[in-house]
Amino acid sequence: MFPVVRVVVMFSLAGGALCAQAPAPAAAGPTAEQVMLRKIYSEALGRGAAHDNLRALVTQAPGRLSGSKALERAVVWAEQTLTDLKLDRVAKQEVKVPHWTRGTAESVKLLPPSGSAGNSSSLTAVALGNSVPGDVTAEVVKVGSLAELEKLGRAVAGKIVFFDRAMNPEHIATGRAYGEAGEGRNRGPAAAAQLGAVGALTRSLTLAKDDVPHTGATAYAPGQPNIPAAALSYLAADRLVAALAEKPRLRVALRVNSRWFNPATSHNVIGEIRGTEFPEQIILVGGHLDSWDTTPGAHDDGAGVVQSIEVLRIFRALGIAPRHTVRCVLFTNEENGTAGAAAYAAAAKEAKEKHLFAVESDNGGFQPRSFSLGSTQGEAHVRATRWLPLFEPYGVMAFTKGTGGADVAPLMLQGATVAGLTADSQRYFDYHHAATDTIETVHPRELHLGAAALAALIWLVDTQGL
Amino acid sequence: MFPVVRVVVMFSLAGGALCAQAPAPAAAGPTAEQVMLRKIYSEALGRGAAHDNLRALVTQAPGRLSGSKALERAVVWAEQTLTDLKLDRVAKQEVKVPHWTRGTAESVKLLPPSGSAGNSSSLTAVALGNSVPGDVTAEVVKVGSLAELEKLGRAVAGKIVFFDRAMNPEHIATGRAYGEAGEGRNRGPAAAAQLGAVGALTRSLTLAKDDVPHTGATAYAPGQPNIPAAALSYLAADRLVAALAEKPRLRVALRVNSRWFNPATSHNVIGEIRGTEFPEQIILVGGHLDSWDTTPGAHDDGAGVVQSIEVLRIFRALGIAPRHTVRCVLFTNEENGTAGAAAYAAAAKEAKEKHLFAVESDNGGFQPRSFSLGSTQGEAHVRATRWLPLFEPYGVMAFTKGTGGADVAPLMLQGATVAGLTADSQRYFDYHHAATDTIETVHPRELHLGAAALAALIWLVDTQGL
Repeated sequence: MFPVVRVVVMFSLAGGALCAQAPAPAAAGPTAEQVMLRKIYSEALGRGAAHDNLRALVTQAPGRLSGSKALERAVVWAEQTLTDLKLDRVAKQEVKVPHWTRGTAESVKLLPPSGSAGNSSSLTAVALGNSVPGDVTAEVVKVGSLAELEKLGRAVAGKIVFFDRAMNPEHIATGRAYGEAGEGRNRGPAAAAQLGAVGALTRSLTLAKDDVPHTGATAYAPGQPNIPAAALSYLAADRLVAALAEKPRLRVALRVNSRWFNPATSHNVIGEIRGTEFPEQIILVGGHLDSWDTTPGAHDDGAGVVQSIEVLRIFRALGIAPRHTVRCVLFTNEENGTAGAAAYAAAAKEAKEKHLFAVESDNGGFQPRSFSLGSTQGEAHVRATRWLPLFEPYGVMAFTKGTGGADVAPLMLQGATVAGLTADSQRYFDYHHAATDTIETVHPRELHLGAAALAALIWLVDTQGL
Repeated sequence: MFPVVRVVVMFSLAGGALCAQAPAPAAAGPTAEQVMLRKIYSEALGRGAAHDNLRALVTQAPGRLSGSKALERAVVWAEQTLTDLKLDRVAKQEVKVPHWTRGTAESVKLLPPSGSAGNSSSLTAVALGNSVPGDVTAEVVKVGSLAELEKLGRAVAGKIVFFDRAMNPEHIATGRAYGEAGEGRNRGPAAAAQLGAVGALTRSLTLAKDDVPHTGATAYAPGQPNIPAAALSYLAADRLVAALAEKPRLRVALRVNSRWFNPATSHNVIGEIRGTEFPEQIILVGGHLDSWDTTPGAHDDGAGVVQSIEVLRIFRALGIAPRHTVRCVLFTNEENGTAGAAAYAAAAKEAKEKHLFAVESDNGGFQPRSFSLGSTQGEAHVRATRWLPLFEPYGVMAFTKGTGGADVAPLMLQGATVAGLTADSQRYFDYHHAATDTIETVHPRELHLGAAALAALIWLVDTQGL
């Protein structure tokens, strides 16, 4: 059953119930701001195009890694999709991007200890992004952290280091667990290489106890030794742990077939509605077009791409003529280089463009819960808090301090207030950087609520300033 | 990518950021309440058993409609699962429940107008719960509301009335859309029958544009004519609308093979931890064991069942000895009679049991967002608001006014404060009362967050009163 009374009160238009000390609703009827937010949300939920757009993007261009044909198909798709909105300007900005490929599929095999009899068996794994190629067979040393690795020192020389740190399920915000557990993937292979290790394995950064491996970038120190590196699925990591408990001297054969090419040509894709009063002042909304090669990239960051496009569609559909230029920027190469963001910021500086505000969606297409804001001019998140009563009826419950998304952060140094849409994080890492990040895991209403939240915030910044 | 900084701030332990006017966190470290809530959430997220229990329940006993063998298998499972927790008491309460079956599958066929040539084609449909059997072929009259039906009056005599009202996607709380659109299913067949109609069809109450039909109870007026009634899937309803636009005099053949039996024997299942100070005063947490016959009933209400059990497991695991008796009640027959709730309330009254507090989870196993509370002694939700800063770090953002769930509402008249856990509603009606309400649609973390919220609230009521 589903008694209605309990739910209706939660998101009443007045919204006061959601925050005990919020001001009482005006008896005189909704304000102009309340009316506009209602229109924006109705457009997004009633006639939203973002989910259909996302289906098209991930169907036509899965695996949009920098340098791939899929990414350039995504660029063509994005330009056409923005063109169809009949905006005031659609353009591409050329960007040189790193070009790494994994080549034929990597493999990780469990072998009996040297000199022992026994069969080999495969462990489900995926090479880490940026991994050098290699084909090594060695004993395995399991560590729980970089600190533990440092203690072992040269004892890992000639070995394969296995970073076995699971994300902590007890954190409410899963991004916190991701950040804590991420050192093994981010810096582990480089640290192990410097101690003489010949290969590196990590436990996938996920909370889903399944056999799906999750990739992501690893970083090598310039001029230092590099070793091949791969992430095991959660269950494969469990298998390796169990096997090591039984046979500490077992060996693993790790093969990575990756290759670096010369930088490739890619593009940021830009569409805008010109401002009626201050066309030279820009409010930016964006996401990143590229994804890892092993995934459709529906949440990361197809969602941010189609939500950003949707903001312009909503403005057009409602006949909103913004005072400032509202620009959608679909960045290239966020995952392994952020060259798109750097090129955009450099061009903006060169052209002396003034960015008032730049918000990115890159937390997945889940329900929006808050915005993070950063500014070099005081506490933007505190100033934005005056809008909280407008957003609470729609489930956006906070403005917090942050530095925006990776693609918009550089604009803060040029004076822009930067922001990120924070989506509900419970399910995100089940799919993040994995083949399971599919359109089926993106709920249309949750995606469209995010687009509406972005459009509402941009409308408020445009009409009232921040 | 997933920059961590934005997410960490959202659910900081202090929680103040989520509500602008919340008190600042104490510099002296966390309070005893903050420490206990942290323990409860860690237990639920780190070692939660609810999702595994849910898998067992819906695998062993899908389609737990009153009178079915599946429901009695669920009773056995529930008793055993509570027994395994080594509680102070596990018991069953016998309840006589209505026994309706749909028999062999119902069918809805589209036929050409009388006298015309053409083929018939099937429309995906499911009989409404309580529908009388029947086999009728007639022209179709489409109406958008009961009011529209009343205007047509006897013009619908001899026809099949098609209630074509979709849930409004523009509402944020989908329960509101469900409530508004529900009249056609709830009262439409009875109203049409009184005007001489021979059958009734409704558009399924869902926001998912798919071919899955959703059942649910319809109610006939006692002593008045009854007609067979079925719900079309969303897409089948669209097909019927399109077909009627082309051929207004087309006919539909509706066949329902349902049957009423004599009332069956079922059981409420009860487990409790006896209170150390006030064992005769009861704090109740519950859900309902039964489901519709056509669905595994994972969200509705397997989720509430396993969350209620999980509250006791968490208390045991943390060594919490409550001052009052904490009782888990798994009600039978919520979907088509609420005989379990009535029997429980009657027995409580008879035994002069004092229920301090009774909370139900019956909104699906999605992320908890708020609690609704009702009391005959003043505004319980206002009193509970003092606990909001404790819950905000965990995403429970409001205490609102309500009447609890259907199973606990009767206890309000006996002086209990009643409550309902309000879960995020965006995805609920995609699955509600349909074959798609499967374990795969229930996310372990979301389910476990709900169990933790229930345990936390019960611990606060037990230690501090409400």
